[in-house]
Amino acid sequence: CLHKFFIKLCFRGSAIACVIGKNAAEYPDYFGKDIKAWIFDEDVNGKKLSEIVNTEHENVKYLPGIKIPSNVTAVPDIIQACKDADILVFVVPHQFVENVCKKLGGNVKPTAVAITLTKGLLPNKEGGIRLVSEEIKKHLKIEVSVLMGANLAKEVANNDFCEATIGCSDSVETGMMWKRLFHTENFQVTVVDDVVTVELCGALKNIIACAAGLSDGLGHGDNTKSAIIRLGFIEVMKFVECFYNVSNIKIFFESCGIADLIASCIGGRNLFMFIKPFPEVEKEVLKGQSAQGPMCAAEAAAMIKKAKLEAK
Amino acid sequence: CLHKFFIKLCFRGSAIACVIGKNAAEYPDYFGKDIKAWIFDEDVNGKKLSEIVNTEHENVKYLPGIKIPSNVTAVPDIIQACKDADILVFVVPHQFVENVCKKLGGNVKPTAVAITLTKGLLPNKEGGIRLVSEEIKKHLKIEVSVLMGANLAKEVANNDFCEATIGCSDSVETGMMWKRLFHTENFQVTVVDDVVTVELCGALKNIIACAAGLSDGLGHGDNTKSAIIRLGFIEVMKFVECFYNVSNIKIFFESCGIADLIASCIGGRNLFMFIKPFPEVEKEVLKGQSAQGPMCAAEAAAMIKKAKLEAK
Repeated sequence: CLHKFFIKLCFRGSAIACVIGKNAAEYPDYFGKDIKAWIFDEDVNGKKLSEIVNTEHENVKYLPGIKIPSNVTAVPDIIQACKDADILVFVVPHQFVENVCKKLGGNVKPTAVAITLTKGLLPNKEGGIRLVSEEIKKHLKIEVSVLMGANLAKEVANNDFCEATIGCSDSVETGMMWKRLFHTENFQVTVVDDVVTVELCGALKNIIACAAGLSDGLGHGDNTKSAIIRLGFIEVMKFVECFYNVSNIKIFFESCGIADLIASCIGGRNLFMFIKPFPEVEKEVLKGQSAQGPMCAAEAAAMIKKAKLEAK
Repeated sequence: CLHKFFIKLCFRGSAIACVIGKNAAEYPDYFGKDIKAWIFDEDVNGKKLSEIVNTEHENVKYLPGIKIPSNVTAVPDIIQACKDADILVFVVPHQFVENVCKKLGGNVKPTAVAITLTKGLLPNKEGGIRLVSEEIKKHLKIEVSVLMGANLAKEVANNDFCEATIGCSDSVETGMMWKRLFHTENFQVTVVDDVVTVELCGALKNIIACAAGLSDGLGHGDNTKSAIIRLGFIEVMKFVECFYNVSNIKIFFESCGIADLIASCIGGRNLFMFIKPFPEVEKEVLKGQSAQGPMCAAEAAAMIKKAKLEAK
């Protein structure tokens, strides 16, 4: 079977494109030769970013210094990028997910399978949150898996040892295909069959990271921070159990659970949100990227309050 | 009922003496007025440390700048300090535990209860490890509980928010007494009925902290470190299950488990063991204190090898 890929080449997307590109080339019997990566095009020093990626094989804006495999081609048109693809890999910042899904609806193969790497939830207009995997499924009507874990793009790109958890409720074969696509010696992938818990772990940990950042900002020490991580971890488990009716404690011991939580609380984006006022930080420290924690915290808190579960 | 206390005033002991002293004064119906704290006496600027503590109410050598409550009296003679005590609190560095127990054997009330705060295991001459709580019980023939958790002395003394887990297999009343003695607004105590798992969590995490230190020393990032913490955490659970036949997964979510492990891996003593060669580090960085990780790792590895459990 020959597959094609769809990847949004944002900062993180470039790192994962390196992994996918290498693995696709390694297993030519399983994967198609060419990987099409949708790129949100922009001007960089008077040139189009897509052209730079396709000639210099480097995302000079979001992942400078790292070579992207030559079987990855940047495509600025999203419909064109996904047409005829058997495999869709979503690495879309959460605020663009809805628009991307609307554009793609009706424009992908009905037999395609998708996986999302977005760590963040979508706020509902009437309150509460939606999972990114559910949103993609709703619009594209195809099976959606998730990949989460402690694997910051820069460290993945640098070939540092990282882990990931894939939640796949589709067939065992699809799970094995995802593992073949993502697993490398330095990027160790475990596949579990619980999409919801894996995605919620990846999204809700941002709330705990905000609290850890607040603690750092107030000058508290490592023991206080460890207590916040521990108590937050238990809150996340309770939230998943109460609102999604799943109680799969083993998943919380996977990379998507405890490891991603720790990594975010000792070095993640949300941690640095509290050094200065929010808008300044987003601009200066995060260089235009956004932190999911505050929005996620507000929505989760509203859900807990509405369900009268504050004391639980 | 009136109780007396025995505390070894080492660095950590001074911090916990502040907590105990305050709580004992707060509950005069439950606890005796005077707390006797055994101190390993030494000369500090030409004066005895015990005299300095008893006049200035400060352990100027191991916890300078922190006032020790006036109901705590330093006693240089260990037999004298423990005579007639109903409650014994052990805060003895692991290398002195055996000698202290031998001296005290036959010299404490048979109705006394003890608790140990030592995070470290004792190596057996014939290989393998012994629990500190078991060692005390063997010599003193009294009930022994344990207190572990992410609560570095300095942060406890500074009144930063910390947590602790007490493992108590004695009666519920003893467990409640320990909670009353240690619990404060900023030092939150949870009591569980599994002494072995709590103590093993506190001791074995030092091995993982060594690995985390090695990763830092090699220049790896936060995701690698989180993977080490996660994989090490699972190894600790397997070790406890295999060698002590207990499988109490909830304990690992207490402060003694995941929180202490995280605190040690982001700021603990064992972490700093790998910046320079061992003897230099122990002298310069740890200022004469010892790190339990390397010894503990060697003994645990030997046990695993002997039992042919490497692949598990």
